[in-house]
Amino acid sequence: MVNKRKILNDPVYGFITIPDEFIFDLINQPLFQRLNRIRQLGLTYMVYPGAHHTRFHHAIGAMHLMDEAISVLLQKGIAIDEKERQAALVAILLHDIGHGPFSHALEHSLIHGVNHEDLSLRLMKMQEEKYGEIMKMSIDIFQNTYSKKFLHQLVSGQLDVDRLDYLMRDSFFTGVSEGIIGTERILKMMCVNNGDLAVEEKGIYSIEKFIMARRLMYWQVYLHKTVVSAESMMISTLKRAQELALSGEKLFASPALAYFLENNVEKTDLNDEVMSKFLLLDDSDILTSIKVWQNHDDRILSQLASGLVNRKLFRTRLSSEKSILDEKQNILLNIQAAFQISEKEAKYFIASGSIENNTYNPDLEKIWISMKDHSRKNITEASDQLDHYTLSKVIKKYYISYPKAVQL
Amino acid sequence: MVNKRKILNDPVYGFITIPDEFIFDLINQPLFQRLNRIRQLGLTYMVYPGAHHTRFHHAIGAMHLMDEAISVLLQKGIAIDEKERQAALVAILLHDIGHGPFSHALEHSLIHGVNHEDLSLRLMKMQEEKYGEIMKMSIDIFQNTYSKKFLHQLVSGQLDVDRLDYLMRDSFFTGVSEGIIGTERILKMMCVNNGDLAVEEKGIYSIEKFIMARRLMYWQVYLHKTVVSAESMMISTLKRAQELALSGEKLFASPALAYFLENNVEKTDLNDEVMSKFLLLDDSDILTSIKVWQNHDDRILSQLASGLVNRKLFRTRLSSEKSILDEKQNILLNIQAAFQISEKEAKYFIASGSIENNTYNPDLEKIWISMKDHSRKNITEASDQLDHYTLSKVIKKYYISYPKAVQL
Amino acid sequence: MVNKRKILNDPVYGFITIPDEFIFDLINQPLFQRLNRIRQLGLTYMVYPGAHHTRFHHAIGAMHLMDEAISVLLQKGIAIDEKERQAALVAILLHDIGHGPFSHALEHSLIHGVNHEDLSLRLMKMQEEKYGEIMKMSIDIFQNTYSKKFLHQLVSGQLDVDRLDYLMRDSFFTGVSEGIIGTERILKMMCVNNGDLAVEEKGIYSIEKFIMARRLMYWQVYLHKTVVSAESMMISTLKRAQELALSGEKLFASPALAYFLENNVEKTDLNDEVMSKFLLLDDSDILTSIKVWQNHDDRILSQLASGLVNRKLFRTRLSSEKSILDEKQNILLNIQAAFQISEKEAKYFIASGSIENNTYNPDLEKIWISMKDHSRKNITEASDQLDHYTLSKVIKKYYISYPKAVQL
Amino acid sequence: MVNKRKILNDPVYGFITIPDEFIFDLINQPLFQRLNRIRQLGLTYMVYPGAHHTRFHHAIGAMHLMDEAISVLLQKGIAIDEKERQAALVAILLHDIGHGPFSHALEHSLIHGVNHEDLSLRLMKMQEEKYGEIMKMSIDIFQNTYSKKFLHQLVSGQLDVDRLDYLMRDSFFTGVSEGIIGTERILKMMCVNNGDLAVEEKGIYSIEKFIMARRLMYWQVYLHKTVVSAESMMISTLKRAQELALSGEKLFASPALAYFLENNVEKTDLNDEVMSKFLLLDDSDILTSIKVWQNHDDRILSQLASGLVNRKLFRTRLSSEKSILDEKQNILLNIQAAFQISEKEAKYFIASGSIENNTYNPDLEKIWISMKDHSRKNITEASDQLDHYTLSKVIKKYYISYPKAVQL
Repeated sequence: MVNKRKILNDPVYGFITIPDEFIFDLINQPLFQRLNRIRQLGLTYMVYPGAHHTRFHHAIGAMHLMDEAISVLLQKGIAIDEKERQAALVAILLHDIGHGPFSHALEHSLIHGVNHEDLSLRLMKMQEEKYGEIMKMSIDIFQNTYSKKFLHQLVSGQLDVDRLDYLMRDSFFTGVSEGIIGTERILKMMCVNNGDLAVEEKGIYSIEKFIMARRLMYWQVYLHKTVVSAESMMISTLKRAQELALSGEKLFASPALAYFLENNVEKTDLNDEVMSKFLLLDDSDILTSIKVWQNHDDRILSQLASGLVNRKLFRTRLSSEKSILDEKQNILLNIQAAFQISEKEAKYFIASGSIENNTYNPDLEKIWISMKDHSRKNITEASDQLDHYTLSKVIKKYYISYPKAVQL
Repeated sequence: MVNKRKILNDPVYGFITIPDEFIFDLINQPLFQRLNRIRQLGLTYMVYPGAHHTRFHHAIGAMHLMDEAISVLLQKGIAIDEKERQAALVAILLHDIGHGPFSHALEHSLIHGVNHEDLSLRLMKMQEEKYGEIMKMSIDIFQNTYSKKFLHQLVSGQLDVDRLDYLMRDSFFTGVSEGIIGTERILKMMCVNNGDLAVEEKGIYSIEKFIMARRLMYWQVYLHKTVVSAESMMISTLKRAQELALSGEKLFASPALAYFLENNVEKTDLNDEVMSKFLLLDDSDILTSIKVWQNHDDRILSQLASGLVNRKLFRTRLSSEKSILDEKQNILLNIQAAFQISEKEAKYFIASGSIENNTYNPDLEKIWISMKDHSRKNITEASDQLDHYTLSKVIKKYYISYPKAVQL
Repeated sequence: MVNKRKILNDPVYGFITIPDEFIFDLINQPLFQRLNRIRQLGLTYMVYPGAHHTRFHHAIGAMHLMDEAISVLLQKGIAIDEKERQAALVAILLHDIGHGPFSHALEHSLIHGVNHEDLSLRLMKMQEEKYGEIMKMSIDIFQNTYSKKFLHQLVSGQLDVDRLDYLMRDSFFTGVSEGIIGTERILKMMCVNNGDLAVEEKGIYSIEKFIMARRLMYWQVYLHKTVVSAESMMISTLKRAQELALSGEKLFASPALAYFLENNVEKTDLNDEVMSKFLLLDDSDILTSIKVWQNHDDRILSQLASGLVNRKLFRTRLSSEKSILDEKQNILLNIQAAFQISEKEAKYFIASGSIENNTYNPDLEKIWISMKDHSRKNITEASDQLDHYTLSKVIKKYYISYPKAVQL
Repeated sequence: MVNKRKILNDPVYGFITIPDEFIFDLINQPLFQRLNRIRQLGLTYMVYPGAHHTRFHHAIGAMHLMDEAISVLLQKGIAIDEKERQAALVAILLHDIGHGPFSHALEHSLIHGVNHEDLSLRLMKMQEEKYGEIMKMSIDIFQNTYSKKFLHQLVSGQLDVDRLDYLMRDSFFTGVSEGIIGTERILKMMCVNNGDLAVEEKGIYSIEKFIMARRLMYWQVYLHKTVVSAESMMISTLKRAQELALSGEKLFASPALAYFLENNVEKTDLNDEVMSKFLLLDDSDILTSIKVWQNHDDRILSQLASGLVNRKLFRTRLSSEKSILDEKQNILLNIQAAFQISEKEAKYFIASGSIENNTYNPDLEKIWISMKDHSRKNITEASDQLDHYTLSKVIKKYYISYPKAVQL
């Protein structure tokens, strides 16, 4: 009899085997299928035209790596029973289930103060009744209350399969080869030392490369200034739309989006109604609505929407000097003059702040290297070159974004 | 002085250089940016989760290959002047500009009898005034009324850069390695023989492989039966929505989609209003609206919509025997019984027809092989194995799709 | 405790894990290490400069695929016990152990009538005493006398892991992307039907592509006419060297090569002394000696040797018409005139014959496709396009090779 | 008329076009063809079985990158005339022409004090007469006496095409993915700033990654401890063979190798005879001879040779503490006891020393970053993270190698 294991084509790893029926059913829940309509990297496709890959694909990929990591640990004699294996797979599959469309933009406009991790946890708990014990153990692993903490570290740690997958996947779909890491080698070198996830000594260079690759991906992709521009514009657009909606203005929106425009949802409001509306949202609601807003009577809204749709994005200036923000007032005045609008309105056309990339914070959590003598060292001690000083240095940059039409 | 040539990251070819300012401007038109919101392979991502790549990306990729092909021909002494080069680049960039979202589904539901090539041509003509002579030459190349017919063959022929790019790109994003072809080799072997685009003799095996790869991609991706299921469901969904709209039923839709639901657009209707509405449509309009229809009062509509959104797709049976279609009446009766609906309503839950892949029709148009003695042969003569008989054999399959709930 | 499984970097598959200590020891035998000094593709590096990969690397790669294939079959419920698994791994590791350097050239010059498969078998038998039962079972698998014939088919059949590896590997190192096949997919689709190795129905396109890729690699790499030239020259060189040696002429050679030059070894002579000398030979003996022969007094030898060393190769003409061989006498006369040599001597400067590629002989052995209803079909029945006619067509080409200096 | 430009398959870049007839002729010289018999990474294939690629392949690859780099600079308006372009191509093609087989081992045994760069220069000068002006300019570029110093920097500098190619190529053939760099991106970002080769500001992350990749390749490949073991053994073997030869002992060797064994060649001896013998040497002379020496009467020689041939290599211990070398005397005593040999003889079985990797010495030479305002900065100033401190830190490790049989 032929075992009917499902196989998915994945351009990153070739093939992904869905390990069992239980996982297969979970993937087929509407809750999870919804991730297939939410881009992993939001508006990044405006800079990297290949970056339309979804959170669905990433979750499946991370599950695949979890499966491989657990096989490696089992071969090395680490005790992981079948239920733990399944719970770890469920935990990584659902770790991002709380993401909405264009998460970052939404969290800074319509759903203030709600972060996706809280939502993921909440959504996992909502399924405890249905899935019972496995989901319970999965939540424990997710929250780091399960005894074998290396399972949590595989889901969420300095060297988790989440990061391993997203670096590979984002690198693959953007075409930024700098993000390619030795995933397969890192997986094969994984072990458990003193209860913690660790990497064998001879994998040390792969870890160094992983840390560097992550840093490079931050500056080259995740914090790319044109992505910052597009996100800033989306935040302004959604804020303006909400302002209009709350003031009673008519505004096209899909029903789910309309709910968030017409209600000022705060964290405390996360009741079942809000959750059900949230789960209806995906990229298409936002993109369709913004496209319609291009023709709205409100000039602020229509101009922002049209810029986003037709890729007439803000100019973003980036600097390691905070003084770049000093120009803000001057720019605001220029915007007022250029567009003949009030200061309050002009604020929709400017964004500023700071972005930072601290790569790896050795004080916060450690990547353990398991030495040949079975002792262990933090990567900053074990590495010849990536020392504490280099790794703990936080790079912070200040940005200011505004329409290209504004001449300074 | 540094030449400010724009470079795009492309995971398929590494980097794509936008050759000049004119092309750069064209790409930045809203008309073209719109393609960045239309998936190249429609609903295929339901089977191959990486297949979210867009028509924008394909058009840019095909332009890149055109640029390379022209460089190769120039090096071999073929006369192509700067204007012709630019016109060929424009022609390939715009060859798919007439595509709407989920083209195949739309052409079989809301915009009967309009094919995307007619629309591409119409849209190119609309820009003639703006862009002048280059666009004129570009249209001539597109329509094969330009003297150097090899330029047309590069845009649209048995071995055009359109196919070369889409095979590579679709293969890349689906992860179906069978579609990988020796693009670079084929390009380097291109030449012109007796006025026609041809391939040097030593490139013959690459051409054979290209023809085989195309065939394999047809069955494994383009005509994959789950894709057939999803498309059939989308066609039914849109038809039902239109039926309801035309009968005065209230129905959520983005304004552009609403226009097509509420009007029975036929080919003859392609006036400027229709065109402007059409250009506002993209994947998000369709996906958002179908998602909302899940909760519509009409059971037919809501059931179809919900199936599409949550990936509860029809079962599709495929056979080379036409007799498979004989079961249609029996299935219809089963659907009526299972869902307690009328025959007319049941028809929304069944789809049938034939799909075929004729790979390469040697009677219609030829792939020329340029022999060492400067004579030329059709690939079917030049190839030892892919003879006329094999190549001209059309493979036709019959399909019938209906809900999995229906037991026969 | 960490399991010390050895891992090898392999550019083709990423990493190869040596499955156990027994296999690890076998690989470390001098008999096997010797393969690391024998190029897989002989003189092909003269055309494809990357093709220096060795028989060692291929054997290890094929073992890796065998390991994966067996895992797939085990998951599908096929009974294979641990000993059988190990024996199959040994069989594939040693399947090419009988290859000497530049096998084809040697078999047509110094070691007439001995083929590498006989030698492999003989060498396996020589190790039976040392390795006992596993080696016995391994020989049975190799010779197809073991009850589970699918194990033999994995070692040596129409779809064995030998072919799967060499197509991938040769394609990788030559850079001929036409040879890339969906190895991973084919492996995952493998099953056993009615005792025979088979492939699940949905893997059918991958099999078609595999058959085509193999054909293309034949013409583009294995039977490349410049490779034919180089091999013809090496055969002539070695024959001439032997002629001189047998006539008492002094000639530089490594001791092992000297043995074969000074003795006319025929198949019947395969005693232990011959075997021990044979096992000392590798590419470097042949290459070093030919390099020295460039300065030998014998003009025939020095000219052939110098041509090989400095890549002044024969011209090879290839044709599907046998009549190309009619020119042989005329060419011989031209060679005599050009080099002022006798007819007998001139024969060293000409080579002719035929090469053929029959891709897949459906009459001889079958590639079984396991249908969804558990019946099975030969690929020629199951495939829509690669029918019996196409597949069984043998392509035969005639070649004639001679110095470029000879003008006709 | 079709331009007959030669194309080579290269698995690293796909295809390499030989740019013109002159270069094509140069490549076909015996002097250059010889590089096809010399492995780029010497004995590294004993650790990475794919690493049989040759200096020929690397030289061709570096030429290809030079061709691309020059095209990029030309497009950016840098003045480079046709003769300069050709001279730069010649310079990079011949930059390694002075390499003998297993360079490092030979330079530490048979040809003391001769480095391959001196030999390359000498060999280029030997061809000045034949090739005239182009070779003269090429030598000037090679020696940095040509006015446009960026051409020299492309041949030999911190960011030369030599390094770009060898990192990519060695990474490709070893399968160590850590060495993959964004070659294409780096090339496209190249420019000239104030006469020096520089990289545009937005290429800064690719440069950081290049520097890291180079460091990782050092430790993971070039200074891999098993490679150190194998090289140490080859040095001992060749030294012992020479000692025996100089003392009149009979010893098998190819004539060219015999010359170096029987003569104590020092740098001053580099006369034409020595050069002609040197040019006859390649990997096969060394490998064949060592293989024969396995059966030599001298136990020291036969044991070392047999270890190398059958991969019974020294154990190498590596440490950042110099104190590891303190054990040398003790180890020597152990060797004497284990093998029953004198101290002088025992020294052939031990090797020690230090290896270091200084990645990038910012004091010595600079990688220039060309800023948007046309000023320039050293990478250590321009980079946020790879500061002077990190980059200039030299990592030094001490090693000691001896037979595994020796128990401490």
